[in-house]
Amino acid sequence: MKTEIISKNTLLEHWLGHRNLTRQTIDRFPEEELFNFKVEGMRPFAAMVKELLGIAVPGLQEIVDNKSGELDENLNYSTKAQLLQAWDEATPQIIELFGKIPEERFTEEFNLFGQYKSPIIHSILYFIDNEIHHRGQGYVYLRLLGIEPPFFWERE
Amino acid sequence: MKTEIISKNTLLEHWLGHRNLTRQTIDRFPEEELFNFKVEGMRPFAAMVKELLGIAVPGLQEIVDNKSGELDENLNYSTKAQLLQAWDEATPQIIELFGKIPEERFTEEFNLFGQYKSPIIHSILYFIDNEIHHRGQGYVYLRLLGIEPPFFWERE
Repeated sequence: MKTEIISKNTLLEHWLGHRNLTRQTIDRFPEEELFNFKVEGMRPFAAMVKELLGIAVPGLQEIVDNKSGELDENLNYSTKAQLLQAWDEATPQIIELFGKIPEERFTEEFNLFGQYKSPIIHSILYFIDNEIHHRGQGYVYLRLLGIEPPFFWERE
Repeated sequence: MKTEIISKNTLLEHWLGHRNLTRQTIDRFPEEELFNFKVEGMRPFAAMVKELLGIAVPGLQEIVDNKSGELDENLNYSTKAQLLQAWDEATPQIIELFGKIPEERFTEEFNLFGQYKSPIIHSILYFIDNEIHHRGQGYVYLRLLGIEPPFFWERE
């Protein structure tokens, strides 16, 4: 027991703020380019978003159930509206599942997706960092398309 | 006093791992492109790295001194070797300054650079998130240059 530098709820709020910004980023893409525009050697932004969706709720569910499963990022969303709807539906699930992880478990090891064994806090920071990483890439895609990305600090 | 979800030292190690990856990313750029290649509406990767250098140590120094200063990201580095040296010199300073912030202060408000008033933990998460964001952009620059970026999970 120590003075905590960040509470569980503050970390969740921080992630949800990032998710708001990612949602705005998805929304800036024209439908066609969201699914088809890409830089050589990379994926379209929609594929990155499917990866994020395949990680967040399923990853938290595994942690809550304390039972490893398989990573599936090939989700069947083919329109921007479907992708945004999936994004919005994930939000209350993230809030509920995150809330079910007791503080004591964050420092415990868990074998995420049966292949990434690390303390739970590392997995959760990975979820957030990976989202920021891919969204940063989405910003460059938008710029290449001549579209202004949302402000990085707009999290509401 | 609660069971902490992440210790101060784990957060520092997490950041240092990201800094290692950012260093590798800088190093992948050819010198000319590091300072001159950019996408319309954006800056060259070297300018983003200067921003990161202008934030990390000066930001932590302000927090430790509990005294707001001014943000200066126009640093005079004009070669890749200078940039990498500055990056490496910042590392022990980050370790030292971060270590001087008592756990109790992370939830306190501080007016970073005289303009960003928020709990200190938010400022520190911003330092890390902003680095991940710009590094993700650097990855796309590398791909546009036909260069493979480092693996995202390589933090050593």
